Amino acid sequence: MSQSKPRDPDAVHRHLRDVQRLLSRQRLVEDLVHRQTMPRHDLVESIVHRQHIARLRRKLDRLHPADIAWILEALPLEDRLFVWDLVKAEKDGDILLEVSDAVRETLIDNMDPAELQAAAETLDADELADLAPDLPPEVMEVVLESLDTEEQQQVRAAMSYPEGTVGSLMDFDMVTVREDVTLEVVLRYLRRFDALPDHTDKIFVIDREDRLRGILTLESLLISDPETEVAQVMQSKSLISFAPEDDAGGAANAFERYDLVSVPVIDAERRVIGRLTVADMVDYIREESEAEILSQAGLRKEEDIFAPVMRSVKNRWAWLAINLVTAFIASRVIGLFEDSIEKLVALATLMPIIAGIGGNAGNQTITMIVRAIAMGQVQPSALRRLLKKELGVATINGLFWGGLVGLMAWWLYQNPALGVVMTAAMTLTLLVAATAGVLIPLIRQRLGRDPALGSSVMITAITDSGGFFIFLGLATLFLI
Amino acid sequence: MSQSKPRDPDAVHRHLRDVQRLLSRQRLVEDLVHRQTMPRHDLVESIVHRQHIARLRRKLDRLHPADIAWILEALPLEDRLFVWDLVKAEKDGDILLEVSDAVRETLIDNMDPAELQAAAETLDADELADLAPDLPPEVMEVVLESLDTEEQQQVRAAMSYPEGTVGSLMDFDMVTVREDVTLEVVLRYLRRFDALPDHTDKIFVIDREDRLRGILTLESLLISDPETEVAQVMQSKSLISFAPEDDAGGAANAFERYDLVSVPVIDAERRVIGRLTVADMVDYIREESEAEILSQAGLRKEEDIFAPVMRSVKNRWAWLAINLVTAFIASRVIGLFEDSIEKLVALATLMPIIAGIGGNAGNQTITMIVRAIAMGQVQPSALRRLLKKELGVATINGLFWGGLVGLMAWWLYQNPALGVVMTAAMTLTLLVAATAGVLIPLIRQRLGRDPALGSSVMITAITDSGGFFIFLGLATLFLI
Repeated sequence: MSQSKPRDPDAVHRHLRDVQRLLSRQRLVEDLVHRQTMPRHDLVESIVHRQHIARLRRKLDRLHPADIAWILEALPLEDRLFVWDLVKAEKDGDILLEVSDAVRETLIDNMDPAELQAAAETLDADELADLAPDLPPEVMEVVLESLDTEEQQQVRAAMSYPEGTVGSLMDFDMVTVREDVTLEVVLRYLRRFDALPDHTDKIFVIDREDRLRGILTLESLLISDPETEVAQVMQSKSLISFAPEDDAGGAANAFERYDLVSVPVIDAERRVIGRLTVADMVDYIREESEAEILSQAGLRKEEDIFAPVMRSVKNRWAWLAINLVTAFIASRVIGLFEDSIEKLVALATLMPIIAGIGGNAGNQTITMIVRAIAMGQVQPSALRRLLKKELGVATINGLFWGGLVGLMAWWLYQNPALGVVMTAAMTLTLLVAATAGVLIPLIRQRLGRDPALGSSVMITAITDSGGFFIFLGLATLFLI
Repeated sequence: MSQSKPRDPDAVHRHLRDVQRLLSRQRLVEDLVHRQTMPRHDLVESIVHRQHIARLRRKLDRLHPADIAWILEALPLEDRLFVWDLVKAEKDGDILLEVSDAVRETLIDNMDPAELQAAAETLDADELADLAPDLPPEVMEVVLESLDTEEQQQVRAAMSYPEGTVGSLMDFDMVTVREDVTLEVVLRYLRRFDALPDHTDKIFVIDREDRLRGILTLESLLISDPETEVAQVMQSKSLISFAPEDDAGGAANAFERYDLVSVPVIDAERRVIGRLTVADMVDYIREESEAEILSQAGLRKEEDIFAPVMRSVKNRWAWLAINLVTAFIASRVIGLFEDSIEKLVALATLMPIIAGIGGNAGNQTITMIVRAIAMGQVQPSALRRLLKKELGVATINGLFWGGLVGLMAWWLYQNPALGVVMTAAMTLTLLVAATAGVLIPLIRQRLGRDPALGSSVMITAITDSGGFFIFLGLATLFLI
C-alpha cells in the first residue's frame, strides 16, 4: 500500500510552482520557434511541445478541483486560459463553482455554449443554481430542459431565495427514514447506497407527509443495538432546523455555537425540503469576512489580481468619489478660516494632527460598536451606558494625547496659548468622535440598516470636518 | 412526542431578553426593599425573590453553554456576575471556554479556587490546555495532579505548541481500528461505546505502533458489506493529515478547500497523536477575521463592551501613539512650507484633499495585494506585472480625479495654475501610493514578516507626508 501524501497543507503551493515551471518551459519552446533562433525542425518542436503538454495534463488530472481553481486564480490571464483548456471537462463544473467571481467571468467568457452546457450538467441542483447567474441564459435553458422535473423544481426553488438566506445555500441531498423501523433496517437500507451525501452526520426521520419527526445521528445508529426502533433513539426535542427564509448569518452563528455538521431545512408545514452543511457555512463565513475587509478598504468586490486596468478602476471608483466629496467638504470648512490661517500659519501645520487622531479614535469606537451589534449583543437600551463609557475613554485620551500635542505646539511655536487651544480642540474632537461612533451604528440599527456599511467613511468625514472646525474655530476665537 | 423548537437561529436573542426581564424584575424587588418604600415583610420579599431566582435558574439550566456564554457577554458586569452565580457548576468549564477572553477574565476573577478547580476538571485535555493560561497557576497544578498520566501528557503536549499551530488546536478523542478486521467487527466494537467523539466522520486505521495506515469513513463503513475487511475499503492514498507544527491557517484552508470534517494529526513517525475537527476550524476562521478587522481599526483585541474605561484606554492607546507620530511627521512636512502657505493660503485649504484621496487609493491597493499574498497567490515574480497594473490604475485615477479637483481649485480661486498644480500633485501622489501599496507587502513577505500587520498605518503615513510634500513642493516651485 503506497503512502503517497500531500501531507503539508501547503501542497497546493508546490502544485502551483510545478504548473508554472511547466508553463514557462512550454513558453520557452514556443518562443524559440517563434523567433526562429532555432532552426524550425517541426518534428523536434512538436515532440517537446507535446511532452510538456502531456505532463501538465497529467499533473492537472491528479489535482482536486479546488486546487485547480486556486491555481487558475494565481495565473495571469493567458496562462490561466491555457491551463483551463487542458483541464478534464468533467472537472469544469466543480472548478467554476470554486473560483472567485472575477476569475469565473474570465473562464466563462472563453468557453463555447456546448462546453458550458457539459460543465453545468455535471452539477447538482443547488450548485447549478449558484452558477446560474453567470451562465448565458440560452445555455441555462438547455441545461434546465435536460433535467427531470424534480431537479428542475429544485433548481428553480434554490434560485428563488435571495442571496444571504438559508434557501440560497441549502442542498437537496439527504437520507431520510421512517421512525417505525429498526436500526437494522436502516443499516440494510444504507448498504444499498453507492455513496452517502457529503457531510451526512445524521439521517432525517420523517413521516408519511415528509414532515420532520426527528433526527437519527450516525453516532446513535452505530452505538445502539440494531434491534432498537428508530423512534427510540432519534432526537425529537429541541431539534435545530432552519426555514429557507432564515438569514444565513444567523445560521452560521448556530453552526459555530453548537458545532453542527448538517441541519435540516424545513418549510412552514415542517416538511423537510433541504439541508445545510458546515461546508456551506465555512465558505459563507469566509466570504462574509472577506467582503467586510474589502469594503472597509473601499473595494466593491474581490478583484482578479491580474484583471485589466479598467476593470480595477471600476471596482474602486465609487469609494474614491465618496471620499472626494467628504474631502471637499472638509476643505471648505478650512476655507472658512483662511483669514485666521493667514495670520497664524502654524494653524495649517497643526490641523492635520487633530483630524488624524480624531479619525483614528472614532474608527476604534465605531468598529467596536458595530461588532457588538453584529453579534447581537447590543440593545438600544445599552445606549446610555455605552455612550458614558466611550465619552470617558475620549476624555482621558483627549487630555493625555491632547496635552502631549499641546506641549509640542507650545515648544515648536513658543506660544503657550496655541498649546492650550490644541489640547482643548483635541479633547472636543475626540468627544465628537466618540459620540458619533456610538450613535451612527445604533441609529442605523434602529432604522433597520446594516450598521457596518460605510461606517468608516461616515466617521472619518465627521472627524475631519469636525476636527478642522473645532480647532480653527477655537483658534479664531482665542488667538486671532 | 413534543415538537419543542428553538427553530429560528435568533432564539438566543429571545433567551437574552427573557434573562434581562427576569433580572430587572429581580432588581425591582431588591430596590423596593432597599428603599423601604414597601414595608419590609421579610417573608413576602424572600418569596418573590426566591421565585424570580428559581425561574432564572430553570431558564439557564435549559440553555446550551454556548448560549449562556453569549448572554453573559451581552450583560453588564453586575448582571453578568449575578447570572454566573446561578449557572450550574457542571456547565462552568464549557462556558469559560466559549466566552471571549475579556469576559473570561471578569468571570475567573470572581470565582474562588475550589470553583475554578471544579470547572476545570469537567474539561477534556485539549480544552484544559486552552483554558490554562487564564487559570491561576496553583489551581492548574491541583487540576493537573487530579488527571491520570496519559491526560497529563496530553495537556502538556497541547500547551507546548505555540498559538496558531495545528498542535494548539487539536483534540485527543478518536476512534482507531486495525486494518485486518472485518467491518462487522468494527460495527460491534462501536456498539460498545456510550458515545463517539464529536465530529467523528472517519475512523483512523492504525498499525501496531499507532502509525496511520488509512482512514475508514463512516460512509464506507455503512454502505459496504459487513464481511469486507477494513483494508479493502479504507482510503490509504493521498491521505490528508497534518503535523502538529503545521500552521493552523493552512489547515483551515485545507478544511475549506476539501470540505473536511475531521483530519488526523500525526508525528514524524506517522503515529496518530490527535485530531483536528471542522468545529475548531470554524472558530479559528472567525477569530482570525475578527482579529484582522479589529487590528485594522487599531484595537489590540476584542473588547468587553462593558469593560471599565481604563481597560478600554489600554486596548487602544498603542495605535493612537503610532498615529500621533505619523501625524507629527506629516505636520512637520507642512511646516517646511509655512512661507508658501502664508503667501497662498489656498494651499492650506486644498492640501487635505490630496492627502485624503492618496490615502484611500493606497489602502485599496495594499488591501488587494495583502489579500492575494494571504491566499498564497502572489509570488515575488509577479511584482513587475502587479506594479505595472497598479501604476496604470493610479495614472487613470490621478488624471481623472486630479483633473476634477484641479477644475474645482481653478473655479474656487480663479487661478488656473493652481488647478494644474493640483492635478499634477494628485497624479504623483496616487503613483506614490500605488508603488508603496505594492512594495510594502511584497517586501514584508520577502523578509518573512506578516504582510498585513500595520499595512494601513504605513501606507497612510506615506500618502499623508508624501501628498503634502508633493503638493506644497510643486506649489512652491511653480506658484510662489
